[in-house]
Amino acid sequence: MKRIILLRHGQSQWNLENKFTGWTDIELTEQGRHEAAEAGQAMLKADILPDICFTSILKRAIATAHIALAECDRLWIPEHKDWHLNERHYGALQGLNKAETAEKYGAETVHQWRRSFDILPPLLTPDDPRYPGNDPRYSALSADELPLAESLQDTIARVRCCWEEIIIPGMRCNNVGLIAAHGNSLRGLAMMMQHLTAEEIVDVEIPTGKPWVFEVDERMRVIRQYYL
Amino acid sequence: MKRIILLRHGQSQWNLENKFTGWTDIELTEQGRHEAAEAGQAMLKADILPDICFTSILKRAIATAHIALAECDRLWIPEHKDWHLNERHYGALQGLNKAETAEKYGAETVHQWRRSFDILPPLLTPDDPRYPGNDPRYSALSADELPLAESLQDTIARVRCCWEEIIIPGMRCNNVGLIAAHGNSLRGLAMMMQHLTAEEIVDVEIPTGKPWVFEVDERMRVIRQYYL
Repeated sequence: MKRIILLRHGQSQWNLENKFTGWTDIELTEQGRHEAAEAGQAMLKADILPDICFTSILKRAIATAHIALAECDRLWIPEHKDWHLNERHYGALQGLNKAETAEKYGAETVHQWRRSFDILPPLLTPDDPRYPGNDPRYSALSADELPLAESLQDTIARVRCCWEEIIIPGMRCNNVGLIAAHGNSLRGLAMMMQHLTAEEIVDVEIPTGKPWVFEVDERMRVIRQYYL
Repeated sequence: MKRIILLRHGQSQWNLENKFTGWTDIELTEQGRHEAAEAGQAMLKADILPDICFTSILKRAIATAHIALAECDRLWIPEHKDWHLNERHYGALQGLNKAETAEKYGAETVHQWRRSFDILPPLLTPDDPRYPGNDPRYSALSADELPLAESLQDTIARVRCCWEEIIIPGMRCNNVGLIAAHGNSLRGLAMMMQHLTAEEIVDVEIPTGKPWVFEVDERMRVIRQYYL
């Protein structure tokens, strides 16, 4: 039996300010760092200690992994950072206040952007400073891969690449994998592991800073799952 | 032109307590964390920003890398942790106070253990709790690879494996590599890059927390080197 632990990062500065974040690279707050440390303590207490780690390339997820791993004395395990685990790209909403956006576009429209499976938020244009092609960390990506905005469906499609090409091979020689990432990229992993439908996954809320443990067999089929 | 940056970790709790550390996994002190942050600031100011990172599997080097990379906003780069970059294994001296050891064995003997090229310190026995075979992070190593103690020569021989098999291939698609490690493993890298003799390398003192930049050509031949 192997274990996959999904860990959603804790509070970031823009969570606190109620802004759409997406791929914007925002720091954890002190509370977010505390949540990460508690996650590490929970893994230590449960004696479920990661031997491999996967994160997005956004600092709120990377810092969450580092803080949690330091708490359970596993800072030395291999760590794979992959943009495919990034949060859903929120397009032209990134940086906007959620309440103000709801006032401007209407609560129903914003709810659709946030909670539908396949509806895109307003797109960026490539000349926008927020366009990921302007960020050196995405310099190896083709124009096709650089999003102007993503639906949850788009996010899950690229999370699948990481699952199949990085996580499953990485788990072959390891027993406990920690995946520190974001609400929507983790939804993608939960959807694949639990074989959920589009209708089911949009209603899944993953709490921040709580390790979600999936016990899986050698073929990565889920035996049981629970939160620590 | 590519750049390799050697970064020796700053003060650890056992540096402060004047103890032989070796492979013992000791935390940075507050001062050590500050040194790491200053190293990150120096790289930022010089606009020499790593795109790949290599560390040992000891937390004082890993934390140094994380703190420095966070300072220059490069936490997202790939990171390779390799036991071959660990500090020299100090055998049965690990955990002993350096001054007390000098009183017990004589200053000259201790100086030889610390500063010779090929003299071994007193060996551990495999039933010693400090034997690395008791630590899960070394579980994939063969008995031959697990040291009972190392000379500087032994350390440099295994650092060479990392240089040839991990660092040189890792630098093919990258321009700036950060290697966060330890006094003696970094001596090994400096010896290889600068073609130093055994007599020369024992006299090289690498300051803590100061990025040591090597500009190298495509074949990793040093063009020039300087500290930031």
